[in-house]
Amino acid sequence: MVVLLSSQHLHLPFLSPPPSPPKRSNHRTSISMTSSSSSSSSPYSHKDTRRSSLLEFPHLSPSHRELMLDLISTVETRLGPHLLPSAVPPDVAYFQTDSGNSQGSLDIRSGRKDSKIDFILGSWLHCLLPSGAALDIATLFAYLSPKTDAPHLLLEFIQSSPTSLILFMDLLPRKDLVLHPNYLETFYQNTQLDAQRSKLLGVPNIKTYFSSSLYIRSVLSPTAIAMSINCEEGSVDEIMRDYVDSVAKELVRIWLDECAVGGKEIEEDERDDLVRRDDLLKRKTVEIDLASNLPRLFGADAAGRIVDEIQKVFGID
Amino acid sequence: MVVLLSSQHLHLPFLSPPPSPPKRSNHRTSISMTSSSSSSSSPYSHKDTRRSSLLEFPHLSPSHRELMLDLISTVETRLGPHLLPSAVPPDVAYFQTDSGNSQGSLDIRSGRKDSKIDFILGSWLHCLLPSGAALDIATLFAYLSPKTDAPHLLLEFIQSSPTSLILFMDLLPRKDLVLHPNYLETFYQNTQLDAQRSKLLGVPNIKTYFSSSLYIRSVLSPTAIAMSINCEEGSVDEIMRDYVDSVAKELVRIWLDECAVGGKEIEEDERDDLVRRDDLLKRKTVEIDLASNLPRLFGADAAGRIVDEIQKVFGID
Repeated sequence: MVVLLSSQHLHLPFLSPPPSPPKRSNHRTSISMTSSSSSSSSPYSHKDTRRSSLLEFPHLSPSHRELMLDLISTVETRLGPHLLPSAVPPDVAYFQTDSGNSQGSLDIRSGRKDSKIDFILGSWLHCLLPSGAALDIATLFAYLSPKTDAPHLLLEFIQSSPTSLILFMDLLPRKDLVLHPNYLETFYQNTQLDAQRSKLLGVPNIKTYFSSSLYIRSVLSPTAIAMSINCEEGSVDEIMRDYVDSVAKELVRIWLDECAVGGKEIEEDERDDLVRRDDLLKRKTVEIDLASNLPRLFGADAAGRIVDEIQKVFGID
Repeated sequence: MVVLLSSQHLHLPFLSPPPSPPKRSNHRTSISMTSSSSSSSSPYSHKDTRRSSLLEFPHLSPSHRELMLDLISTVETRLGPHLLPSAVPPDVAYFQTDSGNSQGSLDIRSGRKDSKIDFILGSWLHCLLPSGAALDIATLFAYLSPKTDAPHLLLEFIQSSPTSLILFMDLLPRKDLVLHPNYLETFYQNTQLDAQRSKLLGVPNIKTYFSSSLYIRSVLSPTAIAMSINCEEGSVDEIMRDYVDSVAKELVRIWLDECAVGGKEIEEDERDDLVRRDDLLKRKTVEIDLASNLPRLFGADAAGRIVDEIQKVFGID
């Protein structure tokens, strides 16, 4: 979702009164209207129609959409046996404003009991702002359970104009790295994660991005890819295809191999600290972004349903 | 010292065999030879001659030297009543290589018993590298004791050529910020520290710098000023005077007001975690940089004496 988006930074105006005239109002309440087109055109033809809206990514540029589909497919293929089917209600799997100008999709699959996977969350949001600009946010999170201390996966792409995109791609540490240098070595040094960051930083039009939320900055690892692309109209898709694509895929491969599948189980008595830190991370991210941004983007009702679903899988209230 | 300098990043060559011919060999073993000139030209005419070598900063450009003297004076004036006199031996207060091409000065003042100040450390290093380039590192650390959890102060300026300088200016967190959002709010959000970082990042020729050590990156706060200046020859001093000077002074003012003097005392039972984290931070910084870089810059003997003094005040071995 918009966990890494901070309202101050993107200067999102309040969305009331809603813009008019409404568009795509036939699309309003049920995902069933969207499922046929996506399931036929996508290689990920899930029988569960809840997946269909997510896999549309209808507003992304071609390379960006292809990347998101590839990442979700890769993660689901590797972790499939550990995941439960999606259980989000239809009005969370697809939602939009009364005007139809802003739409979104959220899907969550929890890990099976006793699996090391806590949940996988995918989403897209498309918001037509009163200024006429479109805001598109595509997200893939994968959180691990307290059976392992291996990092969570975070990918978020925030496009606020045809010429600019903000990237967050990271393995989120589950421990204080100053106090746990071996953890830093295992998951960040030995995996050569920083080489991926360096590749992107060498690309023209890409530079380091600082979230306006200091808490979000604290959550990120020292190899986090937090960057902004600012380029000519039409070039964002080229940069996604030529540079971001391979880095994102490598990051997901490292996370799958070294964290989700390869990460070792830890003892029960070490789990309390992990749970405490994970819970705080979840609470703060909901507080910082979801609770403050979603209501003005999608109205209180839809925002409430979405936040409820996320809090349910986060195990917080 | 060179705590934030990583050998890989600056590509420092090994200094053996030492370059020749030797210069300033009359300067070799005792600080007494340097004390008269500095104490007469400096407003900080300490009777303790150990201070004299430090306060020379003989190789810095005028604005840079003036800034270092101002910062040290400001910190010592405010914290003076809480500090013991320097106790570093003369061959640590000033040291150089046999050739005289590389020189350095280190001074440390410990906090009085029961004070919130652990120690203040100032140093400069000047190394003439075999390539003919000079490396100059000027440092001011101020560490607080476990009586308070307020951040430590770190300022380090690493100049490896007449056209480039790396800045580290930060208040180092003493706690895991993900787990302690109130700490983040108190010392980083409410103090508006990020505004100082933003000021510098808007200056042409200044950009974000990433230490090649992931541990050092982890140690820094989310408002850390870790930046590099790359400009025309002669412009470094202008940038120091016009931009860095005011930011460094404001950072030190915030640290003095909100951390060193203003920070509240914490309960005894909360101190164990602080000590554990501080100790690890100290051990790792010695291991990462001092132990690996100093011997090749100044030889094993001088490096051993310097590291011993630092370990003594760090309370580690």
